[in-house]
Amino acid sequence: MGEFELLARIRERLPAAGPRVRVGSGDDCAVTVPGGATATSVDAVVDGVHFRRDLASLGQIGHKALATALSDLAAMGAEAGEAYVVLGIPPDIDEDGCIELLDGMVALAGATAASLAGGDVTRAAELFLAITVVGHAPGPDSFVSRSGARPGDALVVTGELGAAAAGLLLLERPDLTEELDDAAAERLRASQLEPSPRLGAGRILAERGATAMIDLSDGLGGDARHLAEAGGVGLRIDAAALPLADGVAAVAAAAGHDRYELTIGGGEDYELLAALPAEELRGAVEALAEAEAVRLTQVGEVVGGKGVEIRLPDGRLLESAGFDQLA
Amino acid sequence: MGEFELLARIRERLPAAGPRVRVGSGDDCAVTVPGGATATSVDAVVDGVHFRRDLASLGQIGHKALATALSDLAAMGAEAGEAYVVLGIPPDIDEDGCIELLDGMVALAGATAASLAGGDVTRAAELFLAITVVGHAPGPDSFVSRSGARPGDALVVTGELGAAAAGLLLLERPDLTEELDDAAAERLRASQLEPSPRLGAGRILAERGATAMIDLSDGLGGDARHLAEAGGVGLRIDAAALPLADGVAAVAAAAGHDRYELTIGGGEDYELLAALPAEELRGAVEALAEAEAVRLTQVGEVVGGKGVEIRLPDGRLLESAGFDQLA
Repeated sequence: MGEFELLARIRERLPAAGPRVRVGSGDDCAVTVPGGATATSVDAVVDGVHFRRDLASLGQIGHKALATALSDLAAMGAEAGEAYVVLGIPPDIDEDGCIELLDGMVALAGATAASLAGGDVTRAAELFLAITVVGHAPGPDSFVSRSGARPGDALVVTGELGAAAAGLLLLERPDLTEELDDAAAERLRASQLEPSPRLGAGRILAERGATAMIDLSDGLGGDARHLAEAGGVGLRIDAAALPLADGVAAVAAAAGHDRYELTIGGGEDYELLAALPAEELRGAVEALAEAEAVRLTQVGEVVGGKGVEIRLPDGRLLESAGFDQLA
Repeated sequence: MGEFELLARIRERLPAAGPRVRVGSGDDCAVTVPGGATATSVDAVVDGVHFRRDLASLGQIGHKALATALSDLAAMGAEAGEAYVVLGIPPDIDEDGCIELLDGMVALAGATAASLAGGDVTRAAELFLAITVVGHAPGPDSFVSRSGARPGDALVVTGELGAAAAGLLLLERPDLTEELDDAAAERLRASQLEPSPRLGAGRILAERGATAMIDLSDGLGGDARHLAEAGGVGLRIDAAALPLADGVAAVAAAAGHDRYELTIGGGEDYELLAALPAEELRGAVEALAEAEAVRLTQVGEVVGGKGVEIRLPDGRLLESAGFDQLA
């Protein structure tokens, strides 16, 4: 397989680039005309560290790598723009395997209106993907950072939580599916393998005045701590309010975990956690339901002080320092 | 070594970001206000494929990875803007090693006015770096693509050629240095290990109306072929006109290679090859000498037809199809 031949084959599969892309893959650089401001994020995933090739197909690995990168754009309230993809390809993945990886990305790029505008392919001992994504907004103040949360803001999450952590347990221990119907198990596994970045929801929350936002990649506990530290505020979360996905409780019970601890400590839900002025809450809930069919749930509030406190239904209090120990 | 602690230590070492960067490393995304048009390129390098850790220090590996990425911006005539760096770190590189890698990049970023605006660090089985660079220009037409060469244009190269290939030979076979004085040998090795992207020269050539431009990464033969194919033109090159670096002839002779074949087939000089309207040649030569102290040499011309012909001083004619076989 020659590098140039593979790149040509990859280029054939790319959908038409978006309106900001003037020169796509094939020159020294891609050329874009951004207009306004850009948000840029890079994310790398490595075999054995971020994914297991025995649990995920190459298409799913490609999908998830791009999804997690786009999720950082969602957390800024950005419109998805361009993605640049580096593939490190080990000897046991052939040209068809590269195309399968790419197809997972092409499908998601199509669904999110992102353009795959450039990339690089290299030999490597182990599979890795490094993805740079560029998002757009009319101006820099249109983006939502992690740092603007104010005491009194409502703390909200999109979608449902715990599915990715429960899905990972199901993938690693197929015996746990005995507690679940097939459709619920399949949804949980799909949450782990093929997450959906919440781009539309992120833009709506930005338009509704979200003061701070982050995507749930490390887990609600750790990501809430990032939001609290960046804003110099405290966060109080009521675990009973967390919108647990169907099946999470059953998987947690079968695996011997507390359902809330699994959800709070388990990462990769790629939902958004945002601080929102309390008076915007109702409007945001309705807007997300209408435009995105996505649930928005208040799970707590921003307070003075610092750190994160999560009250469990049994009365126990989890504090920031303990989140890393959760399973 | 925790990821967050290392990232914090890395952030401390970053110089102040450039004027386009509104939010740097530490949020979900970096935020920039580009203005005009952007050129973006991604490049990955992997241990054992693109570099050897027994021949290059970690600082040199970091320098070269960023230099080769910035060289793609130079080839567009872009102003260097932001760089986003992914590091895949194997178990035998500790936190100090990561900082050494970074310091090689920080020094070059300072010298080229590029901002290290974001990144990601991950564990990996082998060292890899994936670098995304963003360059700027007032508008998309200010960039020079590979495809605009016109018959009658002069074909020019910046700087001197063959040094990186000769330097690699010296690194792999230290016995070859017997033919050279120490300073010349050191310059050749430095060309291989720490190339300088020709950003200033690229901008001047763009301002002077360069119709097509590419950086010499694969080797003059292969890169000339890219330029010819992209433009649908032919290129005629006179090898006797090639500005061979001091010592290249001696190293080639000691290693049993033809000096011209070594230069044409050997890559990584990271000089620029450009097509320039003939009437701009004298002015461009003077401007590069004055502003950048960089030599500009006409090595041939753009002609009708297609493919690349290189006439050697001994009368032999090298044609495109044979470049890949050169050593």
